[in-house]
Amino acid sequence: MEGKNIRQVGKMLRDHELAIVSLCRGGFFAHKDLSKRKSALDDNKRAIEEAFELGTSMIVLVCGADPSQSLEESRKQIREGIEAVIPNASAAGVRLAIEPLHPMYADIRSAINTLEQANDMAEALNSQWTGVAVDVYHLWWDPFLEREIIRCGEQGNLMAFHICDWKIPTTDLLLDRGLMGEGCIPIKQIRTWVEAAGFNGFNEVEIFSTPYWKEDQSAWLKKIVKAYEENS
Amino acid sequence: MEGKNIRQVGKMLRDHELAIVSLCRGGFFAHKDLSKRKSALDDNKRAIEEAFELGTSMIVLVCGADPSQSLEESRKQIREGIEAVIPNASAAGVRLAIEPLHPMYADIRSAINTLEQANDMAEALNSQWTGVAVDVYHLWWDPFLEREIIRCGEQGNLMAFHICDWKIPTTDLLLDRGLMGEGCIPIKQIRTWVEAAGFNGFNEVEIFSTPYWKEDQSAWLKKIVKAYEENS
Repeated sequence: MEGKNIRQVGKMLRDHELAIVSLCRGGFFAHKDLSKRKSALDDNKRAIEEAFELGTSMIVLVCGADPSQSLEESRKQIREGIEAVIPNASAAGVRLAIEPLHPMYADIRSAINTLEQANDMAEALNSQWTGVAVDVYHLWWDPFLEREIIRCGEQGNLMAFHICDWKIPTTDLLLDRGLMGEGCIPIKQIRTWVEAAGFNGFNEVEIFSTPYWKEDQSAWLKKIVKAYEENS
Repeated sequence: MEGKNIRQVGKMLRDHELAIVSLCRGGFFAHKDLSKRKSALDDNKRAIEEAFELGTSMIVLVCGADPSQSLEESRKQIREGIEAVIPNASAAGVRLAIEPLHPMYADIRSAINTLEQANDMAEALNSQWTGVAVDVYHLWWDPFLEREIIRCGEQGNLMAFHICDWKIPTTDLLLDRGLMGEGCIPIKQIRTWVEAAGFNGFNEVEIFSTPYWKEDQSAWLKKIVKAYEENS
């Protein structure tokens, strides 16, 4: 969208008393091909401008992975990519939240697959403009989750908290997330850790779901509110 | 199968000069319900007898997870379950290989989702009858994989090595594995780690795949042999 249109969207949302927590998403820094890496920097600088125009102070980063190279190499490129756009983030007052993604997305979506890796990356970057987004869907299985959430908070990197549930069975790797309470993620438990780590921002419900997107969206919103109140 | 039939199957395979690497699978020790945990012990004792009758000296364990309790609780029950059947394994001369499963199976298939967790479990059990099965499909994304494979070998726990590939895209969580070389798993790299850890057993090709199982199986076997020679 053009800057003017983006500003109008931001105003429209605020006029309806909706807070714009973040722009989702930037990222995809990892490419074996140098020209694609350069192009990714342009994309992310544009996303930072859009976040500024929209009036939000955070971008969530799906960091990327190129299956034609090692995960280590992808992580190196991710770090270089984020470092390259930090000046833009700083100038716009927009923070960049590294979101560790579930290992089932290590092929093409992110080479950062645990909170420990995201913490390592954020601490290495050592910038007030970078941090981490914690999403229960990606991280619930991790035996070190509590420890890493506390670490994330202590280091001042805990920027966002996303919730949904893991359905049993899950029939699609991307678009079959569940409503809080209908799966096996210990959401309340994880929330206590996030709050113990000092996080006091929004609990963002993020449910990518082909079946639920087909439902009547007003009824679906009511279900989300109910599930949020009862199971998160 | 009855003992006599199992022995016949074992003889048939050996008559065709096929080694029976392992019986796959035992496990599913984790249940909130006590009677189900007891029933799982019976199942595993029966599997140990079957492995003995078949003439193989190893059972691969898919350890289980009960989504109605925490992963920690499931792991506690897994440890207790394995401990309870070690005397049977010892009597039959059958080793029990804990297979860590990909985190996308943490809901109902296994609460052991990294090689580090499997190593921890095997070392805690501290028995010559227990060890670990390393499957590239489950573990390739893990940043600590090399370290944990070496540890597994050093502790005498590296009992099996399974290979296949991760397809891009993967369209089913269970039955869409790829042939070596058609995905993003660094199989040759992981094999060097496994061999550096002292493993000299079979490289077992394990490709659960609805589409490939529909193909002509003689032609499919030839593809597997070719892919094994070129890409593993």
